[in-house]
Amino acid sequence: MTKSAPSVAIQGEAGSYHDAAAIRYFGEAYQPQCKDTFEDVFEAVASAKADFALTAVENSLVGSIPSVYDLLRSTENVTIIGEIYLGIHHSLIGMPAAVLSDITDVYSHPVALGQCMVYLKRELPNARLHTAADTAGSAVYVRDQANKTAAAIAGAPNAARLGLRILAEGIEDNPRNTTRFLVLTRLDDVSTKRSRVTDKTSLLIEHLDDKHNDLASGILYRALGCFADQDIALTKIESRPVGSDPWRYVFYLDCLAGTNDPRMRRALQSLSDLGADWRTLGTYLSGENTL
Amino acid sequence: MTKSAPSVAIQGEAGSYHDAAAIRYFGEAYQPQCKDTFEDVFEAVASAKADFALTAVENSLVGSIPSVYDLLRSTENVTIIGEIYLGIHHSLIGMPAAVLSDITDVYSHPVALGQCMVYLKRELPNARLHTAADTAGSAVYVRDQANKTAAAIAGAPNAARLGLRILAEGIEDNPRNTTRFLVLTRLDDVSTKRSRVTDKTSLLIEHLDDKHNDLASGILYRALGCFADQDIALTKIESRPVGSDPWRYVFYLDCLAGTNDPRMRRALQSLSDLGADWRTLGTYLSGENTL
Repeated sequence: MTKSAPSVAIQGEAGSYHDAAAIRYFGEAYQPQCKDTFEDVFEAVASAKADFALTAVENSLVGSIPSVYDLLRSTENVTIIGEIYLGIHHSLIGMPAAVLSDITDVYSHPVALGQCMVYLKRELPNARLHTAADTAGSAVYVRDQANKTAAAIAGAPNAARLGLRILAEGIEDNPRNTTRFLVLTRLDDVSTKRSRVTDKTSLLIEHLDDKHNDLASGILYRALGCFADQDIALTKIESRPVGSDPWRYVFYLDCLAGTNDPRMRRALQSLSDLGADWRTLGTYLSGENTL
Repeated sequence: MTKSAPSVAIQGEAGSYHDAAAIRYFGEAYQPQCKDTFEDVFEAVASAKADFALTAVENSLVGSIPSVYDLLRSTENVTIIGEIYLGIHHSLIGMPAAVLSDITDVYSHPVALGQCMVYLKRELPNARLHTAADTAGSAVYVRDQANKTAAAIAGAPNAARLGLRILAEGIEDNPRNTTRFLVLTRLDDVSTKRSRVTDKTSLLIEHLDDKHNDLASGILYRALGCFADQDIALTKIESRPVGSDPWRYVFYLDCLAGTNDPRMRRALQSLSDLGADWRTLGTYLSGENTL
């Protein structure tokens, strides 16, 4: 489906959960382009500096990443061609000589720290917690400090990569912690990069009613009816502010049907008949939603 | 409507936008209880340490504050009794002797910095930008540094309060930047604190269908129909993960009808007939949505 060693823009560095998701989707040989921000990730694929981008879009506990939804709307020449779900399992990682009872300082991304609070309070009640920009980076920081009282919360593969020791595995409070990632490419060369058969479509509905708030006028309800009438299941609805016009929203829908599905064609025709200004953000094979 | 000097829990300190919204809603004599986190704000009103809480819930540019939606769901003994909209206008504030050309370092909350980037790039292209926990706190920091090359981005009232100088006013890139705040109190003494007539209701829909994803089964569509059938306008729909069960969501709706409105009573009866597990998060007078 993709060439042998595609270049893929991701947020974060080697060892991050984005890196783990990219390895799962593209294979070990993929060429990462590591970026600091989601803006830079979208820019890299939009400007053809990378063949693909892979970005988290929502987590089962934390919810949606609003800036990624905004970038899907503002970056018009990219399209979603795939998705992948990844269970997020955290490890406590320290220096090779460290043991758990040594640890006085724990470093990680604030979301990761928050997801391990039950473990930390039970096993390391006196440890100081320090926030870092990302999980993989906090493991690098622990290695560079070379102090056996410091540990990072990050994915297990960081230990082998950095010559560090796993002090505890699976320390997240909720084992069903899962992140959904989207795979993006440029619209103008999508034909060679997307599977021919698709069963999921992401849509952006910009304006349903120019004169009124779309919610106030009940048109969102009628828009959802276009899909219900065709027995098309929705898996996600997200609203974001329009930006220019306070208290008006754009809506994002994920639908379990590809754009070639006759039911989908009828649903989208009905949506157009309502006067809605919509566009597809991509049609793709749905990812396996396992834990 | 409220007693003369109510105590109100807010996030942030004197001079924050929460403080400005509380002054507008309760009057200058209100007694602030300043908290570091939204969790602490909800806890203060839930435990009756404060008469009320006032909290931002969404901004017209940035969108919803997810943690506030989650706290509305998890804090069962509080209810919304009012809302207020506040235009968010930023000033650049420095030491009394400072002039704009002195400024080399700008301090503020990252959202406020982001909302003034056009101004900053035009007027202070070489200034270093530093993120702070809140806008009012960054003004305190500038006063404490007492260095005329430092400035904060914060609300204009901070200047007079701290003996500082306004170097520029209205520096936000989008003048229609508006935040919606909710006013909360405890459920068990709501009767004395809420206006008798209400025209807006906030609802939480927890589970529409125990066996299926509520979106997949089209039941969200039918739930919205309960309101459309009664010509009740919606002003907001928000989805958040259930938490315990990946990729299932709870939904928040704001509806333009009070719970005593016969149309609302019929809509809620229809919602119950669908088998939905819903509760009201409050019924209140809608705020004036001006800029």
